This record gives sequence, structure tokens and C-alpha cells, in this order.
Amino acid sequence: MQLTAHACRAREVLDRVGDKWSLLVVSLLGERTMRFTELKREIDGISQRMLTVTLRGLERDGIVTRTVYPVMPPRVEYSLTPMGATLITAASTLVAWAEAHRTQIDAARADYDARTEEPTPPQPQ
Amino acid sequence: MQLTAHACRAREVLDRVGDKWSLLVVSLLGERTMRFTELKREIDGISQRMLTVTLRGLERDGIVTRTVYPVMPPRVEYSLTPMGATLITAASTLVAWAEAHRTQIDAARADYDARTEEPTPPQPQ
Repeated sequence: MQLTAHACRAREVLDRVGDKWSLLVVSLLGERTMRFTELKREIDGISQRMLTVTLRGLERDGIVTRTVYPVMPPRVEYSLTPMGATLITAASTLVAWAEAHRTQIDAARADYDARTEEPTPPQPQ
Repeated sequence: MQLTAHACRAREVLDRVGDKWSLLVVSLLGERTMRFTELKREIDGISQRMLTVTLRGLERDGIVTRTVYPVMPPRVEYSLTPMGATLITAASTLVAWAEAHRTQIDAARADYDARTEEPTPPQPQ
């Protein structure tokens, strides 16, 4: 019972802030305010649609704020809200962990791949 | 340049540990060793295949260890490696953040939805 409640709570929480793209956006906006095109350029591999969806979700959650400047063409900037700024620490703890263990993870992967490699089938004579 | 490097590094890192299912598995195994069926039961909504893929990825990364007991039927247990155990802190920092801000996030969502609600189209007379 306790574990189930724990898992449900964690899942709900991670649906909010535990996806890769959201954490990347928060991490980048933690450095400075950015325009959509800047974010798109900085996040290698994100599609226009995925970035739009991610930003809208973060705005809805009160983590990111979107400011439209009435110039031609319109300029739209994204930045962290005060609540969003407090998320940087949590996100960077995870990033710091992974960076500290990167070599160890690479070694574990090489070891795993060597152990589970398909044996060469015997060649017919 | 610096930002691009930052984003790439973060993305690589988050591909490893920043997905919802991996964080949930780590969080549960942080409490105790579990069997596949126990994990499946605790993680509401995960498919058999997704749990298999998630566990295999974590095992390959050296975060989870898989022990097969030679009994009939075979018993397979999953637990965290010493490296995996150090990830609990980072994962729980993120969870703690989201729990601390849950009420604020719910309020932000309600506010956002009220602001962006579709206006009722005028009814034809």
C-alpha cells in the first residue's frame, strides 16, 4: 500500500518535471531568457512541435513565463518564473550525478555488451 | 558554443537517467529488492515490455543488478548496485521539489486554463 502510494505520487510528479525536454528547457532558461528559435537551436534533436508542447506545458505549470513584445515581427521570449528558478537546483543535482558517474556508466555498458554479445554461430563445413 | 555543449551534455545524461520509468524503478528499488511482477504491480500504467526495456537499460548502465535463483519456477530479483544507490538522492531531490510545489503547480494550471479557455462562440439567432 505504502509503495503503491509512493509510486503513484512519484509518477504524477515525474509527468510534470521528469521528462528530458522539460529538464533541458529549464536548464537552459536557468542561464538566461531565450527566444523560441534560440531554444530550438540549443536543444539538438528537438522538433518544433515538441518544443512548442514542452514550453506550453511548462507555462501551464507556472514554471516558464512567455512574454510577447509588440514589435514587427513580434518578439516572444521565455524565461523562468520564480518557482521555475527553484527547480534548477533539483535538475542540476540529477545532471551532476550523471556527469560524476559517466565513466563508470560507460564501463558498465561495455562490460554488459561484452557479456551479452551474440556468440558466433558455428560455420558449416 | 558554451550553451550548445551544455545542452548536449545534459541531453546525453538525461537519456540515461532522466526518463520517468527509470526514475520510478530506481525510487522503488531504493526501498528494497523486488521481483519483476512486484515492480510491475507497483508502477501503475507500465507495460510488461516497457518495464523489461527499462530494467535492461538500467542493468546495462550498471545501476540495477539482476539475480536469477535456480529454483523452479526461476526466481528473478532486481536491486540497486552501489552506484545505483547513489542515484536515489538525486532522484528524490527532484521528487521533493515537485511535492513541495504541487499546490502551486495546480493553482498555476487552473489559472492558465481559465485564461486560455475557448470563448463560447456566439449562438445564431
